[in-house]
Amino acid sequence: MIPRYSRPEMVSIWEPATKFRIWFEIEAHACDALAAIGVIPKENAEAVWKAKDVEFDVARIDEIEAVTKHDVIAFLTHLAEHVGADHARFVHQGMTSSDVLDTCFNVQLTRAADLLLADMDRVLAALKTRAFEHKDTVRIGRSHGIHAEPTTMGLTFARFYAEMERGRRRLVTAREEIATGAISGAVGTFANIDPSVEEHVCAQLGLTPETISTQVIPRDRHAMFFATLGVIASSMENIATEVRHMQRTEVLEAEEFFSAGQKGSSAMPHKRNPVLTENLTGLARLVRMSVTPAMENVTLWHERDISHSSVERAIGPDTTVTLDFALNRLAGMIEKLVIYPDNMLANMNKFRGLVMSQRVLLALTQAGVSREDSYRLVQRNAMKVWEKGADFKTELLADPEVTAALSPAEIEEKFDIGYHTKHVDTIFKRVFGEA
Amino acid sequence: MIPRYSRPEMVSIWEPATKFRIWFEIEAHACDALAAIGVIPKENAEAVWKAKDVEFDVARIDEIEAVTKHDVIAFLTHLAEHVGADHARFVHQGMTSSDVLDTCFNVQLTRAADLLLADMDRVLAALKTRAFEHKDTVRIGRSHGIHAEPTTMGLTFARFYAEMERGRRRLVTAREEIATGAISGAVGTFANIDPSVEEHVCAQLGLTPETISTQVIPRDRHAMFFATLGVIASSMENIATEVRHMQRTEVLEAEEFFSAGQKGSSAMPHKRNPVLTENLTGLARLVRMSVTPAMENVTLWHERDISHSSVERAIGPDTTVTLDFALNRLAGMIEKLVIYPDNMLANMNKFRGLVMSQRVLLALTQAGVSREDSYRLVQRNAMKVWEKGADFKTELLADPEVTAALSPAEIEEKFDIGYHTKHVDTIFKRVFGEA
Amino acid sequence: MIPRYSRPEMVSIWEPATKFRIWFEIEAHACDALAAIGVIPKENAEAVWKAKDVEFDVARIDEIEAVTKHDVIAFLTHLAEHVGADHARFVHQGMTSSDVLDTCFNVQLTRAADLLLADMDRVLAALKTRAFEHKDTVRIGRSHGIHAEPTTMGLTFARFYAEMERGRRRLVTAREEIATGAISGAVGTFANIDPSVEEHVCAQLGLTPETISTQVIPRDRHAMFFATLGVIASSMENIATEVRHMQRTEVLEAEEFFSAGQKGSSAMPHKRNPVLTENLTGLARLVRMSVTPAMENVTLWHERDISHSSVERAIGPDTTVTLDFALNRLAGMIEKLVIYPDNMLANMNKFRGLVMSQRVLLALTQAGVSREDSYRLVQRNAMKVWEKGADFKTELLADPEVTAALSPAEIEEKFDIGYHTKHVDTIFKRVFGEA
Amino acid sequence: MIPRYSRPEMVSIWEPATKFRIWFEIEAHACDALAAIGVIPKENAEAVWKAKDVEFDVARIDEIEAVTKHDVIAFLTHLAEHVGADHARFVHQGMTSSDVLDTCFNVQLTRAADLLLADMDRVLAALKTRAFEHKDTVRIGRSHGIHAEPTTMGLTFARFYAEMERGRRRLVTAREEIATGAISGAVGTFANIDPSVEEHVCAQLGLTPETISTQVIPRDRHAMFFATLGVIASSMENIATEVRHMQRTEVLEAEEFFSAGQKGSSAMPHKRNPVLTENLTGLARLVRMSVTPAMENVTLWHERDISHSSVERAIGPDTTVTLDFALNRLAGMIEKLVIYPDNMLANMNKFRGLVMSQRVLLALTQAGVSREDSYRLVQRNAMKVWEKGADFKTELLADPEVTAALSPAEIEEKFDIGYHTKHVDTIFKRVFGEA
Repeated sequence: MIPRYSRPEMVSIWEPATKFRIWFEIEAHACDALAAIGVIPKENAEAVWKAKDVEFDVARIDEIEAVTKHDVIAFLTHLAEHVGADHARFVHQGMTSSDVLDTCFNVQLTRAADLLLADMDRVLAALKTRAFEHKDTVRIGRSHGIHAEPTTMGLTFARFYAEMERGRRRLVTAREEIATGAISGAVGTFANIDPSVEEHVCAQLGLTPETISTQVIPRDRHAMFFATLGVIASSMENIATEVRHMQRTEVLEAEEFFSAGQKGSSAMPHKRNPVLTENLTGLARLVRMSVTPAMENVTLWHERDISHSSVERAIGPDTTVTLDFALNRLAGMIEKLVIYPDNMLANMNKFRGLVMSQRVLLALTQAGVSREDSYRLVQRNAMKVWEKGADFKTELLADPEVTAALSPAEIEEKFDIGYHTKHVDTIFKRVFGEA
Repeated sequence: MIPRYSRPEMVSIWEPATKFRIWFEIEAHACDALAAIGVIPKENAEAVWKAKDVEFDVARIDEIEAVTKHDVIAFLTHLAEHVGADHARFVHQGMTSSDVLDTCFNVQLTRAADLLLADMDRVLAALKTRAFEHKDTVRIGRSHGIHAEPTTMGLTFARFYAEMERGRRRLVTAREEIATGAISGAVGTFANIDPSVEEHVCAQLGLTPETISTQVIPRDRHAMFFATLGVIASSMENIATEVRHMQRTEVLEAEEFFSAGQKGSSAMPHKRNPVLTENLTGLARLVRMSVTPAMENVTLWHERDISHSSVERAIGPDTTVTLDFALNRLAGMIEKLVIYPDNMLANMNKFRGLVMSQRVLLALTQAGVSREDSYRLVQRNAMKVWEKGADFKTELLADPEVTAALSPAEIEEKFDIGYHTKHVDTIFKRVFGEA
Repeated sequence: MIPRYSRPEMVSIWEPATKFRIWFEIEAHACDALAAIGVIPKENAEAVWKAKDVEFDVARIDEIEAVTKHDVIAFLTHLAEHVGADHARFVHQGMTSSDVLDTCFNVQLTRAADLLLADMDRVLAALKTRAFEHKDTVRIGRSHGIHAEPTTMGLTFARFYAEMERGRRRLVTAREEIATGAISGAVGTFANIDPSVEEHVCAQLGLTPETISTQVIPRDRHAMFFATLGVIASSMENIATEVRHMQRTEVLEAEEFFSAGQKGSSAMPHKRNPVLTENLTGLARLVRMSVTPAMENVTLWHERDISHSSVERAIGPDTTVTLDFALNRLAGMIEKLVIYPDNMLANMNKFRGLVMSQRVLLALTQAGVSREDSYRLVQRNAMKVWEKGADFKTELLADPEVTAALSPAEIEEKFDIGYHTKHVDTIFKRVFGEA
Repeated sequence: MIPRYSRPEMVSIWEPATKFRIWFEIEAHACDALAAIGVIPKENAEAVWKAKDVEFDVARIDEIEAVTKHDVIAFLTHLAEHVGADHARFVHQGMTSSDVLDTCFNVQLTRAADLLLADMDRVLAALKTRAFEHKDTVRIGRSHGIHAEPTTMGLTFARFYAEMERGRRRLVTAREEIATGAISGAVGTFANIDPSVEEHVCAQLGLTPETISTQVIPRDRHAMFFATLGVIASSMENIATEVRHMQRTEVLEAEEFFSAGQKGSSAMPHKRNPVLTENLTGLARLVRMSVTPAMENVTLWHERDISHSSVERAIGPDTTVTLDFALNRLAGMIEKLVIYPDNMLANMNKFRGLVMSQRVLLALTQAGVSREDSYRLVQRNAMKVWEKGADFKTELLADPEVTAALSPAEIEEKFDIGYHTKHVDTIFKRVFGEA
């Protein structure tokens, strides 16, 4: 977790104080459920809630852990200092540490997912606004970095919207998958604790009881969670790369917003570098790097080993904090991205009409010229544009083999931009349900 | 794709002949749709279907591609040899190569997903059968590889079942996500082809039209697909690792089925090695290694670049073929796995009663002994068992501090196995809906 | 291994026939060594060499393996069919299958490394030739995709040369690390076979005896090997990405060679796409994906498990074949890359003189203007160029605050290209040892 | 960077104060070199050293950066507050931010490598000590988790030593590769700064001048560095896994040292869990996860983009801190590991003599029995041991087909342990140069 790439709300989910707060709630709710079935006295359960508003002393707990080398015991010892040893001895009855740790971890991941969903909403809103704003802003579509046919900037935003919306749906699913809790004892048999305790605790915390746990909640859930974040990060990199290309000196169809006080480089003041999107490219790698260890964590020896734990201590906070920061940076970048429609037009016209070659090819075929001949005719005129800077339309109008098949008016019509944008509304309706 | 780790049904999805067959269907259906809206003559569209039963000549197409260096043109040229140049010139009208390639790839992935779903059904059926068979087969649960508390072999199978069922649900989602097609032209604007063509082709092939495509179908769908296979592979490794542990010489609670003619090793005939599950461990790594490149493929330059293509040529077949083989090997391994209940009991009793220490601890606490004291009492008797091979129950009955809190009958009761298995039915009902 | 991305020489290293040939040599040399120390009769050792020129019948060996389910036994059985059961029974004496398998695998990797080293030599030669050819071809250097200061195309080639040369050195080290063999028996103790056998076999095969093996050669060697290939592939992607950028429509400083018969796209004949370098980008991902499983393979249970085997059956051939193909494609691409010096100049001059702003900044500072003021002066003139298309030098000459510090001649001098290229020779000498 | 998995010495390398200190040294040495060639006045260069003992105010620099959004400018501004604006304006002359940042990063990585090398020395020392201590402690070797043939615990330690020594050698190489610096200006041409400055700064900081840089030092060096750490981490996991297996309840050939106050689990006081080695297993995953992003960082656009930067801000500290902690934990674990030779013997004898089957097989073959018959004879007696708990030697002595080939004395001799350990000294000499 790097401070400069962190937002406080997500960071706070992972702070020790939050963790101990969740542990407390798990233990206190468990006491209620144990009291409800008569395993412990009601007054002891109630007494635990005395600590409800306590801010647990993280340093003190660390101190105890330094001796016991066991974090949950350290916490329970500290809790006893608040509710009294007499009441405290009923706490954690029949439970195992992992009941607390794993349920807490999933509460944290669920909350993290909620923040990330809000982040994605901000990204989606920005993309939608910019898509409608530039629905008809014509630019050249490119494949292989080479001009292909006209499209619009709105379509570019719209496809990022559709991709991010898929990401959001996946995250909703991943959140649901990770929102489980387990209070099932040392090997998951409920031998020492009634399943009703798990049900109660989960209901109170907004979780679903884990179908079947061992000492731990199965880690395929976590693997799927981090894999989902990895795909979202990859989509983010896809958007970032588009902007980086648009901001290239030679392209200059867009620029990240450049605030007044900002210095682009210590040496070249004229430079406005796409540093936000380059940064997002790197952050995507950081998010993605959690996927493999999360998958390696799925295999645990028998009813559990603790190899997954150190991995999760790192990737739990780091990955969610990084993605949270990155999605917000992404949203802000999109919201303020400066678009240059004039440059888009200028770029499109760089190879005077050449991007219309596909239409001419089709028209020739439809006019009865064979596919091979049509190809040859288009190719020979196109090459003049490419190599000598000729105007494509002019060349076509001067090629007797072409004019034998197409009238000047027909050729002229092939260069109409409206032809390329006629289905923009259709596509917008698919993406946004409106156009 | 390694022959020894391949099954013919999955391999055939990826054979050139299958690919060309799908290409043909896409082109022929597209012609129908183009004829329906009057873009091409109906007789030309009908003529294309003359090639319906043709087995395309892969070698001939390769030959043409060697010249044109373009696979789709090579195919179309070959198709013309079957339906006649006159009709053929209407084929592929307004389309771009990727319309065919990407739609085909998703058809292949969808079919692959269907096979994998069937594979998972076989795995699930095997796990369920074995779970009910060994529902009450008691064995020791282990955390950190160390004996913890009793559980049953049925619960082990049941948790693998629940995990694989989650995997299956994820694969259903991933299959749905990948089952899209696109016929939208060079940059996805439908400039040269009406959206109705895409709709018709997709409907005929069991696909959904891609919400918004560029020249290609967005690769976040594919990333999610391979990530899902990676998680399933990880769950498979989890099962494999359990079996490998069970088959260890010192544990010997299970063995992979060992056929009569099989030789374990060239030098040690007595050895029965868990080679299937070790192999599955390796195959899981192979499946998982596709996840990162699939995510790296999400970022494409502008409306597409072709960097993803070589990656997909490899991981498309290799990953699905490997996982298909592995899931079948897994299913067969589970179906025939030889379970040794007697060894399970012997292992459980290795540390005479020690695994019941948790119950004794709880009983002491509930009898009013403080948590710290209870811990101390259990610990001091447990250490005698651990270090001197004493019998835990005997030691407890002889410890006056213990007997001051618990009667002999109460101590005796703590060693009842039924205590640990009392919720097996509850859990089975959660997992299987029945017990 | 994808046929279209394969070269026969590398493929042949991994063919079953090659493998059996190497197995034969290991066994035959081992017999010699065993005979030399009197363990087996000399005539039996000699008899084995009768099979020296035999082309082993792969299908027959597969057939036997189908029964024995053990590849080495199948091979030995087949070998006996050639040298006679009487002699054959002395073959493989005291050895374990892994002695043969692992030593063979390392022979194959070593040969693969030799081919890759030759490939890298071709890449290096191409880079050097092009570097000297374009040593003085001026182009604009870019950071963040934005124009920075002038450099030369020769320097670009030179840095790729230096990077690839580092890669070559790493590969030499990795090759040396992997060139070990082990003939040490079932758990590596040499209990059943004298260390002199290992020494003899290794010497004959150009290997070093493994310092200490178990049943297998330790897999950290292989992990390092594949990690090294992963870094080389990443450097290859670095070069490929540069070319892809140079070939962008708006940049067009270079183009991959485009042969006469080649069709760029089925629909847009004017397009010349950088398909080779895009392909190399994808192939780099394929090479890199072997790194993680190769590292996961390092951990084996006790003296060995067989989880690594399936991974290596895939990544051994696939990764070396892919990289071999890719390096050759890279070399060919570099050799024939079409460079456009005129476009380089035109691009550099796009923002009339702005790229010289760094020099002006320095000059102002050196003339006694404070760093902050110098920055401000440069920035205000630069912005006129950026926003209004003014000429930078003209603006500076008209700015009294600037001319108060620098004379017109001094300003003029700041726009001399030679200033930027004066150390090209220095750098070339560092890279190539000559300039 | 997780506090519980961090050691202060490595953490301090990555603290802002250290970074600014290194920046200062780079700038001050550069001033000296600039003064030496007359570019700046000597007194200004000398004046910079006034800040030699300043502890830079990190908070103040952050404050400035919040305005300038540029870290190096913020630092230079702060530096000016110490040495005076008058002198300060000569600082950083002709340099670009990356000259400072990249050179500093490599200084940090080099120092990190030095600590890691010391860590590895501690691991190696521990392994060597334990290897000689247990050189003759016999235990069963296992393949596939199944008993194979006897080996010694000393050989186990020795092979980990050899593996770690290879890791150390690789790290020495990686350290050398990363120990470069670059002061070459905005695009690496030395246009604004003489190469002698780079030479001087590098010499002062113990670095080699980068052969050819752009704005940045090429990232293949860093990729190789992190890949090397990944391989070392994998070797560490290999050792950790061995210990985890040894500590399994059923095996119990070793235990991690268990301090008096430590509580194994909140519920099961008798449990001594191999938590250190399980933790090391997880930490290995964390180290390894940096490899892929480090390789993805190699590709930068043209003379640089900044995508690598955020990745390095994370993996630079996190990976080195984690590995440093882990190697020390590993060393401590090895130093104190409790070995149980008696249990090793008991385990070895679990299948009464069966592990000697390989020797019997060989003896039969050498006595003239065919390979197939020998195999059959050994197999049928071995199965009696396996299935009925018979004693292998007794069965062999009672099998007339066996005794027809081997005398009782010959059979007896096959069960001598010394046979298996006779080459331990040979192997130790290979590994340690002494035995």
